[in-house]
Amino acid sequence: MRQVAINTHISGKFNIELENLRNSVLTMGGEVEQQLVNTLKAIKQNNAGLAEKVILNDLKVNSMEIQIDEECLRIIAKRHPTASDLRLIMTISKTITDIERMGDEIERIARLVTKNKLPPSEAIISSMVVIGERVAAMMRGTFDAFARQDEAEALEMYDKDNQIDSEYKKLLQFTTTEMERTKEDMQDWLEVLWALRSLERIGDRCKNVCEYVVYLTHGKDMRHTPLESMQQKLEQLS
Amino acid sequence: MRQVAINTHISGKFNIELENLRNSVLTMGGEVEQQLVNTLKAIKQNNAGLAEKVILNDLKVNSMEIQIDEECLRIIAKRHPTASDLRLIMTISKTITDIERMGDEIERIARLVTKNKLPPSEAIISSMVVIGERVAAMMRGTFDAFARQDEAEALEMYDKDNQIDSEYKKLLQFTTTEMERTKEDMQDWLEVLWALRSLERIGDRCKNVCEYVVYLTHGKDMRHTPLESMQQKLEQLS
Repeated sequence: MRQVAINTHISGKFNIELENLRNSVLTMGGEVEQQLVNTLKAIKQNNAGLAEKVILNDLKVNSMEIQIDEECLRIIAKRHPTASDLRLIMTISKTITDIERMGDEIERIARLVTKNKLPPSEAIISSMVVIGERVAAMMRGTFDAFARQDEAEALEMYDKDNQIDSEYKKLLQFTTTEMERTKEDMQDWLEVLWALRSLERIGDRCKNVCEYVVYLTHGKDMRHTPLESMQQKLEQLS
Repeated sequence: MRQVAINTHISGKFNIELENLRNSVLTMGGEVEQQLVNTLKAIKQNNAGLAEKVILNDLKVNSMEIQIDEECLRIIAKRHPTASDLRLIMTISKTITDIERMGDEIERIARLVTKNKLPPSEAIISSMVVIGERVAAMMRGTFDAFARQDEAEALEMYDKDNQIDSEYKKLLQFTTTEMERTKEDMQDWLEVLWALRSLERIGDRCKNVCEYVVYLTHGKDMRHTPLESMQQKLEQLS
């Protein structure tokens, strides 16, 4: 009996630790999502001060990654988790790297404002903000799917990236037309292109996290699975 | 005595497993480096067949990542490694994600050839190949530093990225001048820009791996440490 009680005690504590770990990932994800929201606001308002704050705040995101990684190590070393819990912790460690690098992409976008390189076209700025808002929503959904280990939501978010990609391609096309029209300041246009690309890359990183969720919940490694197969799965689920 | 013998036996097997794991990372790294070398060859020869082979071969790289990750999980679950060995295995798991994504960047560069979007400028093509060769050398050095857990080499490779970045910036400047001169086909130029960016990003990913090596050998998390501090360390070491 005593053994059972101790085990329950240990496993209870372990569950709390896992729960805390999961919450830390959510907090970190929320922080990065807020960074994107602030960046979009800075773009809309051409507010260099706010963009500067985003850039500084990326340090906080970086230190969150290191802290969570240390916690992953500590828990594995202390608790010797079983295969499935271990898989969860290893996946958390990979997920926070993706979240941290989403933060880096956001920082790059924010620099468009601090460097005063916003495109000379209201249409491009507003399309950028619209896509950015979709990406922020995708981030929210992705982290939510991660927290609840919700495979269906992860696949839905994965699919959202298709819409984002197609809007991104349209915006690129429009941007290149503007570039051809103005025929100068290509270096400035490059900054705009990199920012657009960063926005699209955040979507890709959300996809990585979605794949981890499917991997964890479905027990199958969906990484590097062609999109068609993911969509078939999505249809089967709906 | 028997206990000691068993422990030695277990630790001997464990060491072999760790050694195999390390070798798998090197094999995967070598594969990705070869992918870059082949891509550069395909660019020089405008050889779409070879570029197509690179793209197909990326599947192999992807499956290597999954296999090594499974092996990391298996070893941790079976061996309950100590803090430092555990740190090594967790870092291997992160490293192979970076290597796999270097593979993705290389695939993107190879598509420049299969899509027949090589730039209409011999000067750009040859600069691209020169930078690509430097990146391939940086990859080789980085994986070598990783295998030997050689902090000094990791910092040297980290520093190499500065040279690559400065050549990349010069090439971008030249490319934008060409873009302004031709004033058309901006969509085609975009493909060139993305390929250049991908090349530069491989260097960034090598830097990530170098940071992991410093983290492992020095016991300190160098991730997100400003470059100046890294360079100070480099000077202290030399």
